[in-house]
Amino acid sequence: MSQIRKDIFTDRWVIVEEGEGPTEFHFKKFARDAGFCPFCERNEAATPPEVFAIRNPGSSPNGPGWSVRVVPNSRPQLRIEGQLKRRAEALHDLMNGVGAHEIIAETSRHDRSLHELEIEEISNVIRAYRARILDLEGDQRVRYVLIFKNHGEGAGAHTISHSISQLVALPITPRAVKTKLKIARDYFALKERCVYCDVLQQELKGRKRLITENEDFVAFAPFASRFPFEMTVLPKFHSSAFSRIGATQIDNVSRILRDLLQKLDQSLGGPPYNLSLHDRPFLRRRGDYWNTIEEDFHWHIEILPQMFRITGFEWASGFFYNPVPPELAARSLSRGGRV
Amino acid sequence: MSQIRKDIFTDRWVIVEEGEGPTEFHFKKFARDAGFCPFCERNEAATPPEVFAIRNPGSSPNGPGWSVRVVPNSRPQLRIEGQLKRRAEALHDLMNGVGAHEIIAETSRHDRSLHELEIEEISNVIRAYRARILDLEGDQRVRYVLIFKNHGEGAGAHTISHSISQLVALPITPRAVKTKLKIARDYFALKERCVYCDVLQQELKGRKRLITENEDFVAFAPFASRFPFEMTVLPKFHSSAFSRIGATQIDNVSRILRDLLQKLDQSLGGPPYNLSLHDRPFLRRRGDYWNTIEEDFHWHIEILPQMFRITGFEWASGFFYNPVPPELAARSLSRGGRV
Repeated sequence: MSQIRKDIFTDRWVIVEEGEGPTEFHFKKFARDAGFCPFCERNEAATPPEVFAIRNPGSSPNGPGWSVRVVPNSRPQLRIEGQLKRRAEALHDLMNGVGAHEIIAETSRHDRSLHELEIEEISNVIRAYRARILDLEGDQRVRYVLIFKNHGEGAGAHTISHSISQLVALPITPRAVKTKLKIARDYFALKERCVYCDVLQQELKGRKRLITENEDFVAFAPFASRFPFEMTVLPKFHSSAFSRIGATQIDNVSRILRDLLQKLDQSLGGPPYNLSLHDRPFLRRRGDYWNTIEEDFHWHIEILPQMFRITGFEWASGFFYNPVPPELAARSLSRGGRV
Repeated sequence: MSQIRKDIFTDRWVIVEEGEGPTEFHFKKFARDAGFCPFCERNEAATPPEVFAIRNPGSSPNGPGWSVRVVPNSRPQLRIEGQLKRRAEALHDLMNGVGAHEIIAETSRHDRSLHELEIEEISNVIRAYRARILDLEGDQRVRYVLIFKNHGEGAGAHTISHSISQLVALPITPRAVKTKLKIARDYFALKERCVYCDVLQQELKGRKRLITENEDFVAFAPFASRFPFEMTVLPKFHSSAFSRIGATQIDNVSRILRDLLQKLDQSLGGPPYNLSLHDRPFLRRRGDYWNTIEEDFHWHIEILPQMFRITGFEWASGFFYNPVPPELAARSLSRGGRV
């Protein structure tokens, strides 16, 4: 028998199998290629000039000696130059592809994945995320900054094996983000409480979907997980804007991320995954539709292991089918052994 | 340079590349396995008893001699027995996995894909879709019937290579369907016209995204295509319910589908694809929220070639990135030669 569960943050429904779930998964394991890599130390000239880096004292921009380095994508999906020119083509709406598309090289070494880095190195990646968001907040054309990571071919990273994150700055707030904002706002209007804070308290109390926690963060398998071993990381403190993160919190988010990605690697043998930061949009105008966002919304991180292809069912309905109950996933992951 | 385009039916934004696009795609071509197949003629005993079939005169149920055969999935995501028992678990909402999950064997032959069948055989598949929807409309627990097809491993069909469609009957209208219904309703409220009829007229007039048409149907590359070579099939006649399709229309939809799938095969060399029928939900109550659906909504078919894995960008934002402009895709497909 299965259950049909609703995700409280998105109103998305998921068919979740009960019982013990499959114990074998077929996926293409992450493999590192050995060709020339523009994101390796000493190949800095192969990328556009850096827009941010955390560097050793005495090193020079666009030379060696860095821990994290951010460069514009040399084949960007959106470009920083130009005006949006919002317009219509008969019934349709369009604008120019203005925005930003940056690559965050998480390490100068080609032979390390994110979960194999030191805490201080991961903290530098988080500092780079924060610095780029704060910088792009100054560009009035940008409404939303999305930071994400594709690990392994099954997660869409079919051309680059160096450990990177990507940043896309968008001139519109994406629909998926608006859905979450609206649901959080409606919940607050009804209950005078943040829906993320409520779920956080509940998962900490119930513990059956809890994976791990530390002083500032908690990680759990969401009630209506779309994918087997899906994980959500929530700050224990209420905050709508990731860029307001403090020094101790950076250290703690790095610890929980490394812990989760190591568990994923150990429990499932290195599956492909997508990681994404779910932040609030920039507040551009007083009286904006989203003007209650600071109390409504709560930033978070999602980790989606990609062990199946989604099918026509998911594409047509937005419904998902998950053969592994999140309670079972949380139990396996929190133990940390092989599934 | 790219454009950011909005899909008028879903409010989804897509970054569409301008220019000539990539000419090579890396995907796993469809491959037929040769093991035992429960959907082949004479293996009828290997499936649960059929719920519908189009049979040769004199043949018996669950024996050989059929053109299309519908059986319950032996490992269903949802089961037909039992009550829904809608309930809460603390903050979360859930119900039992009640519904239906059926397999529509499109042919008794293992060595034929849908686009390789005769028009009369494809028409029988369409008749099976109609018959199953009409039957399930009688089950008051069912709100929506989704019919879809996964062709090839890259489209999620990793276990079955026999040419099948799948049917899932759901006790809730999926979120993706509700989004389309709401947008169509708002459009009608504003303009007193169906948004699908309007786009149909525009694409027929503009012709630059038109792929093919016949007396009853038109196929075009949608303005904000998420995937390279994405195709939408719209009836030229306004109708919200697929199950009201008539005999000539069945013949014409079969012709256009075979034509499109053959073009896809010829132009791109057999890519994986998902096909789905976008129908209205069942009307269960007078005064229902969807009570204007007959004039608002217009059923359609989507064909999504799957030549890339989607990434953290799509998962987190609902935004898509498409490197092939739909105008170019329509030109290639309507010519029918190799891309």
